[in-house]
Amino acid sequence: MSDIIKNKLFEVESEFRVRFSEVDSMRVVWHGNYLKYLEDGREAFGSKYGLGYMDFFNNGMVTPLVSIECNYKRPLYYGDTGIITTRYIDTDAAKLVFEYTIYNKETKEILSTAKSIQVFLNADRELLLTFPEFFLNWKRKMGIIL
Amino acid sequence: MSDIIKNKLFEVESEFRVRFSEVDSMRVVWHGNYLKYLEDGREAFGSKYGLGYMDFFNNGMVTPLVSIECNYKRPLYYGDTGIITTRYIDTDAAKLVFEYTIYNKETKEILSTAKSIQVFLNADRELLLTFPEFFLNWKRKMGIIL
Amino acid sequence: MSDIIKNKLFEVESEFRVRFSEVDSMRVVWHGNYLKYLEDGREAFGSKYGLGYMDFFNNGMVTPLVSIECNYKRPLYYGDTGIITTRYIDTDAAKLVFEYTIYNKETKEILSTAKSIQVFLNADRELLLTFPEFFLNWKRKMGIIL
Amino acid sequence: MSDIIKNKLFEVESEFRVRFSEVDSMRVVWHGNYLKYLEDGREAFGSKYGLGYMDFFNNGMVTPLVSIECNYKRPLYYGDTGIITTRYIDTDAAKLVFEYTIYNKETKEILSTAKSIQVFLNADRELLLTFPEFFLNWKRKMGIIL
Repeated sequence: MSDIIKNKLFEVESEFRVRFSEVDSMRVVWHGNYLKYLEDGREAFGSKYGLGYMDFFNNGMVTPLVSIECNYKRPLYYGDTGIITTRYIDTDAAKLVFEYTIYNKETKEILSTAKSIQVFLNADRELLLTFPEFFLNWKRKMGIIL
Repeated sequence: MSDIIKNKLFEVESEFRVRFSEVDSMRVVWHGNYLKYLEDGREAFGSKYGLGYMDFFNNGMVTPLVSIECNYKRPLYYGDTGIITTRYIDTDAAKLVFEYTIYNKETKEILSTAKSIQVFLNADRELLLTFPEFFLNWKRKMGIIL
Repeated sequence: MSDIIKNKLFEVESEFRVRFSEVDSMRVVWHGNYLKYLEDGREAFGSKYGLGYMDFFNNGMVTPLVSIECNYKRPLYYGDTGIITTRYIDTDAAKLVFEYTIYNKETKEILSTAKSIQVFLNADRELLLTFPEFFLNWKRKMGIIL
Repeated sequence: MSDIIKNKLFEVESEFRVRFSEVDSMRVVWHGNYLKYLEDGREAFGSKYGLGYMDFFNNGMVTPLVSIECNYKRPLYYGDTGIITTRYIDTDAAKLVFEYTIYNKETKEILSTAKSIQVFLNADRELLLTFPEFFLNWKRKMGIIL
């Protein structure tokens, strides 16, 4: 992580309400549905910081997930409201990394933590081995790099 | 319905197993998941009779749903195996109509009936008001029209 | 419909944003995902009028869907915001009926209309052939019946 | 890992076909849907080796996921058939660990690898810190422990 970002935190909080259809027969949210919440988190981050799916798409890129990791500590129940914190993690590799914390809005308990890694593909779906110009510009604008 | 098809039945049976993630907190399949089973049925029909999504796509068309109706009579439980029968319903309008019956493989009880209506859009996503040539050829091949 | 309700409208508007994961390869919301939006609509109605899933559950009942019908007029795209209007439709049969209109928040165009029918089951999952007391009380409170 | 299991491999192969509704606007399977395939894999394992959800449930336990990790190497497209290999990984902690490999049935290319960790909860949803008797018996039957 660069010295500059150390003192800044790029993160967004967003809220979601558990749908009936997201709950399984154990009456808790089915674990796979958390990946939708993580996507909501990335979208909230993208909207706030100009780094959304469409921002990349309009710059000739897509950013598929190559790795996701999710840890489940406490369950979410039907009707619960969750808060998801999505944090940008700076890296020197040509990747886009986010860490997430999901907690219960009412009890403030941490329910889940997660991490995702995305790569950059160009319009021909070829992997970019260095940061695309659009993303370097974004980093500069954010003060992450000079 | 044409006189010719009256004596022929274009239908396909396919099988599916209820996933844990498809069951809700009432321990039965969440009603919205039936639309995936109906899609499985259409795909099975398309594979058998050369009328699948990709067959249309390769002929410059897509066939979005414009109407779906589903009646739920008895529930499906986790671990159940269902059978879906997908029947082609001939119509004079430029539409693609299917009727479905879902029953329990073991008990043979009818669980659900459904009906879907699709239209034809060309590559520019414009609605076709008459049957596309590809589909007329299919009807001829099936003996539905002369 | 009773004379009394004719002059009153029990409906709720709620908002939803299209998730990336809800969009299919035609770049529009996959038709099956509308059933989640309809469920969101029923929940919004239930919250406002005290007629939610948990209200029934706490009174010893569940209210499974027995019929759903959805008509698709115009597509929803990734990033769109939809508004769903959920209207209570009074009926003399022991059923719970809702009608829905989904429209685009920005363009105000109607995208979809739908109708759902639910029945009342008691704690033993037996069908109630007459309105349960809880629901009659709700109707009285709303001024739908005397 | 015990000496005994070193020489034995407990794994199951199962097959799945990509549904249209599982594919996103990039025309590849949405990453979150892989968690359904992993669940299919665990179910196939459970069916073959008597270690399914219902086997635990009937012995007064549930086995929720506490961690999942999935790496995506190559995409799955609509109509593809995938093979998932689900391997039991023995551990001394009171956990249930599986590793997965997903590959393309036709090309044999590895598409994805994954790992899941489950814990044991009793009927009161309390965490079991040691292996439950049912699971120890299973290990004995498999020749994993004496």
